[in-house]
Amino acid sequence: MDEFGFIAKYLSGLAGREALDLKDDAAVWTPPKGQDAVISMDTQIEAVHFPDGKFDGQTAEKLIRVNVSDLVAKGADPVGYFLSLALPEQIGEDDLADFCQGLARAQTTYGLKLWGGDTTRGVGKNVLTITMIGTVPAGKTVLRSGAKPGDLVCVTGSVGDSYLGLKTVLNQMDIRDTQSEYWVQAYHLPDPPFALRAAIRKYASAAVDISDGLFADAGHLAAVSGVSMDIFLTTIPLSTASTRWVLGAANHQKARLDLATGGDDYQVLMCAPERKISGLKRQANKASIALTIIGKVTDGAGVRCMDSQGNEIPVDTPGYKHF
Amino acid sequence: MDEFGFIAKYLSGLAGREALDLKDDAAVWTPPKGQDAVISMDTQIEAVHFPDGKFDGQTAEKLIRVNVSDLVAKGADPVGYFLSLALPEQIGEDDLADFCQGLARAQTTYGLKLWGGDTTRGVGKNVLTITMIGTVPAGKTVLRSGAKPGDLVCVTGSVGDSYLGLKTVLNQMDIRDTQSEYWVQAYHLPDPPFALRAAIRKYASAAVDISDGLFADAGHLAAVSGVSMDIFLTTIPLSTASTRWVLGAANHQKARLDLATGGDDYQVLMCAPERKISGLKRQANKASIALTIIGKVTDGAGVRCMDSQGNEIPVDTPGYKHF
Repeated sequence: MDEFGFIAKYLSGLAGREALDLKDDAAVWTPPKGQDAVISMDTQIEAVHFPDGKFDGQTAEKLIRVNVSDLVAKGADPVGYFLSLALPEQIGEDDLADFCQGLARAQTTYGLKLWGGDTTRGVGKNVLTITMIGTVPAGKTVLRSGAKPGDLVCVTGSVGDSYLGLKTVLNQMDIRDTQSEYWVQAYHLPDPPFALRAAIRKYASAAVDISDGLFADAGHLAAVSGVSMDIFLTTIPLSTASTRWVLGAANHQKARLDLATGGDDYQVLMCAPERKISGLKRQANKASIALTIIGKVTDGAGVRCMDSQGNEIPVDTPGYKHF
Repeated sequence: MDEFGFIAKYLSGLAGREALDLKDDAAVWTPPKGQDAVISMDTQIEAVHFPDGKFDGQTAEKLIRVNVSDLVAKGADPVGYFLSLALPEQIGEDDLADFCQGLARAQTTYGLKLWGGDTTRGVGKNVLTITMIGTVPAGKTVLRSGAKPGDLVCVTGSVGDSYLGLKTVLNQMDIRDTQSEYWVQAYHLPDPPFALRAAIRKYASAAVDISDGLFADAGHLAAVSGVSMDIFLTTIPLSTASTRWVLGAANHQKARLDLATGGDDYQVLMCAPERKISGLKRQANKASIALTIIGKVTDGAGVRCMDSQGNEIPVDTPGYKHF
């Protein structure tokens, strides 16, 4: 099977009309009137961003989900994506078929279509890149730069499950029971708060998705907004499974900090003025998405991690180090 | 230097305002009224698409130029691009600085800005991906699918120089003199007919850029248009240097066929009704871009290579094989 055969058999069924049947090396998109385009690009490398040898449907789903996460944090509605596959020689047709089934599942979840891309054979490890296009009513994109002193800091869902999932996958956990599967699922199939896009647009002053780690990404947002943030460690929402893990740990505070700096959560951390919190909460309740206030925006610079007595806890590594 | 340091020192100066200072993991673009977006994605892998170890400014320039070529063939005006760099460990700051100088040169050539991307460290070889955005007046994108029987087939520039450049780089040429440098330049810095974008929109019924090989890409266009094509081998335009190479070859016809199937030309092959050829030629003359009629579109399927007596010449490998 050559590239054209692969496209015809596996990709053409995933394509939107913008893709011109994937026969034209380019897509044509008529942007809807009154909308801005929000565009993100994300690369995942085998053995760095996903486990060595794991080129499968789950990896495909995660690849789409982490790009959707970027757009959701901007309040954008994803509409199409471009996929570059740089495949090593040993990837066969069964692997490709499984991978494409994962793409199809994620497309169904988010109402997305494939608009184009490039498939190449290289050497070494898989390198997977997605460029995703979303739309937002003109001027309404939620940036990292809009946080203001006095805003409250909220986070969606729960934090740290994916970190424990990665530790489980890497056999670094000393427990393995029913909750292990929950964590592994959170790691492989992150669940960004897709249904909150419109609410984020309407209520948030600034937002970021948590990929590097809650404290690291809060730090990125605070730096771009030119503000400081106090985040209260014990208020950071944990799943029941992860709460049990914290309670079983020798040092509860260190355990909580591990969860809040582990990354790969793909939940949204956002800031909003106090008067908008009730509207945000109402929308989150409607969507059955947890929304928890975890801190406040202040004047200054940097993010402080606080204990419940109001003392600062040092955070040596706020999240994943790039490069 | 971590990823954020690299962005701040080398990439931020290349960024357009859509990139939000490269601090937001997404770009925001307000599409101009009445324009469609044309979007292409192209991946280049070290040791496959560019020489092993050659991560430098020329590679950066070529990466942008091949993406520009895709858009020019659609009649689109490139406006911004996203860059994914998957870098192996041994790439140092000097390499990155040189690479970014190449990006800057290409941006100046085409009036383009960087809108975003992702930089990651992996293992093995460099994998470079660009997603490029262009604009076209609504509904005016030139597709591969518009060729009609009776149209003439034209090609811009000269064909085959890049093929001889690659052979020179790979030490597969038995001659090396002043023309060698010309070919190597054609290989490293392809020169798509950027100034012809508006003319392609106005006059061409279908177009494709030549990346796989003239006969291969003509075949793609013919297949999507549902037509056949006769291309006359001796009419395919060659540079003076490549003409000398043909005349020095044992078998002139085979030499011409090698040039017309070698690929990497990034010239545009287009079809146009006979009545539009004079307008097209006038625009090409104005832009000092050679435009040569090399064949005609007919009913049927497939592309026939013809000699000057009107006999068909078999073409075993019309171009680069994908996968």
